Amino acid sequence: ITNVIQVPSKSHYSLVQWKADGKMAVWLQVPISLSRCAAAAATHGFTFHHAKSDHSMLALWLGEGESRLPGFATHQVGVAGAVLDESTGKVLVVQDKNKTKNAWKFPGGLSDPGENIGSTAVREVFEETGVRSKFRSLLSIRQQHRHPGAFDMSDMYLICRLSPLTYDINFCPHECLRCEWLSVSELAETSSTTPITARVARLLLYGLEHGFDKIDLTMEELPAVYSGMLYQLYHRQLPAKS
Amino acid sequence: ITNVIQVPSKSHYSLVQWKADGKMAVWLQVPISLSRCAAAAATHGFTFHHAKSDHSMLALWLGEGESRLPGFATHQVGVAGAVLDESTGKVLVVQDKNKTKNAWKFPGGLSDPGENIGSTAVREVFEETGVRSKFRSLLSIRQQHRHPGAFDMSDMYLICRLSPLTYDINFCPHECLRCEWLSVSELAETSSTTPITARVARLLLYGLEHGFDKIDLTMEELPAVYSGMLYQLYHRQLPAKS
Repeated sequence: ITNVIQVPSKSHYSLVQWKADGKMAVWLQVPISLSRCAAAAATHGFTFHHAKSDHSMLALWLGEGESRLPGFATHQVGVAGAVLDESTGKVLVVQDKNKTKNAWKFPGGLSDPGENIGSTAVREVFEETGVRSKFRSLLSIRQQHRHPGAFDMSDMYLICRLSPLTYDINFCPHECLRCEWLSVSELAETSSTTPITARVARLLLYGLEHGFDKIDLTMEELPAVYSGMLYQLYHRQLPAKS
Repeated sequence: ITNVIQVPSKSHYSLVQWKADGKMAVWLQVPISLSRCAAAAATHGFTFHHAKSDHSMLALWLGEGESRLPGFATHQVGVAGAVLDESTGKVLVVQDKNKTKNAWKFPGGLSDPGENIGSTAVREVFEETGVRSKFRSLLSIRQQHRHPGAFDMSDMYLICRLSPLTYDINFCPHECLRCEWLSVSELAETSSTTPITARVARLLLYGLEHGFDKIDLTMEELPAVYSGMLYQLYHRQLPAKS
């Protein structure tokens, strides 16, 4: 989108003039203490684009047809960690407190802003179970829309494979009812689990028997072209280039 | 989080009383036309949690320590489609208009709210190139934080493998400078592409030579427990259960 202008909240402006000048859209950032300006802008057709902590951002589309302004973030990201002890074939599972069904699942939770997938898995596993672990791979991705826990937005839920660095369980009594190292083959067959956990247990079992390269998406960090910051890329590992 | 209360914007309320009652948090939904209430609430410590179109949502944490309220959506989701013609080994690529470097890449764009990954890929490919296609698998996931095009939020970028249903190119002149069916082996080697596109070209080449089960994450739809709505689950395909 070209011809987008940004307006300080107190400036005098002319929507008619901007439209005549061929401007496509107007953005209006409003500090929370001046929120009455948001109501005033709404009478001119502005709507909320998003809001963060101490300010809101409004937008008005001036171009032809429907707005082509990009939307704001649509997904929350949750990550669970399947900590697998390869020497015993056991995996770390928890039962949530305050749930009706006592289902075994992998510890996990929502990513903090700016947190990498693997870091969320390692952090949540430690917070819930007291077990330290290391990221190995991404195993599975679930997408779900109009998620009740996501303020009616979408949810992306990723399950990672982790390796244990410590083994002693010291689970969080606020979050967990039980926490155990459970045999992967048992987890793949039990009815006391969720469909997605059982599925990942079958993946882990297959990996134990046939090699983890059959189930893993490995991660690599590459530099972003424009910012120089690193991004994380996940896909099936390819054999080394000949 | 238990003990969360929701307040109509005009009701009289007592934060002191609620805190004494052990309430953990207060949510305040404010219509855009009454935004002056957001400024008033801010003087009591409320901050914006999020805003959508015609209303904002504010929150105030009353509990001990840092807020444990879940945050709002943190990621935008973008999807690209690698439409691979298996009979010719060619893949559909575009060059973006208005970019300095003329790099070949896969057509794609941001997901609309509530849109599945595969649907975004198929829609964006059609809008940019005029080619109809069918979702086959998920190939790669990239996570990037503080993304300039995402209002400083995070970006999740997924690349799908698609099969062509039509072959004639009729590309969008507003978005694309060029559009071609290019040999995958050429795309894997050329310098006129992005690192991530070259990587996916190598994946596709490997799939063509050794079978797509070696590179694909296949998708399955499962019913969500609480809502009955379907969710999409992606992982390496397992052999059929014996």
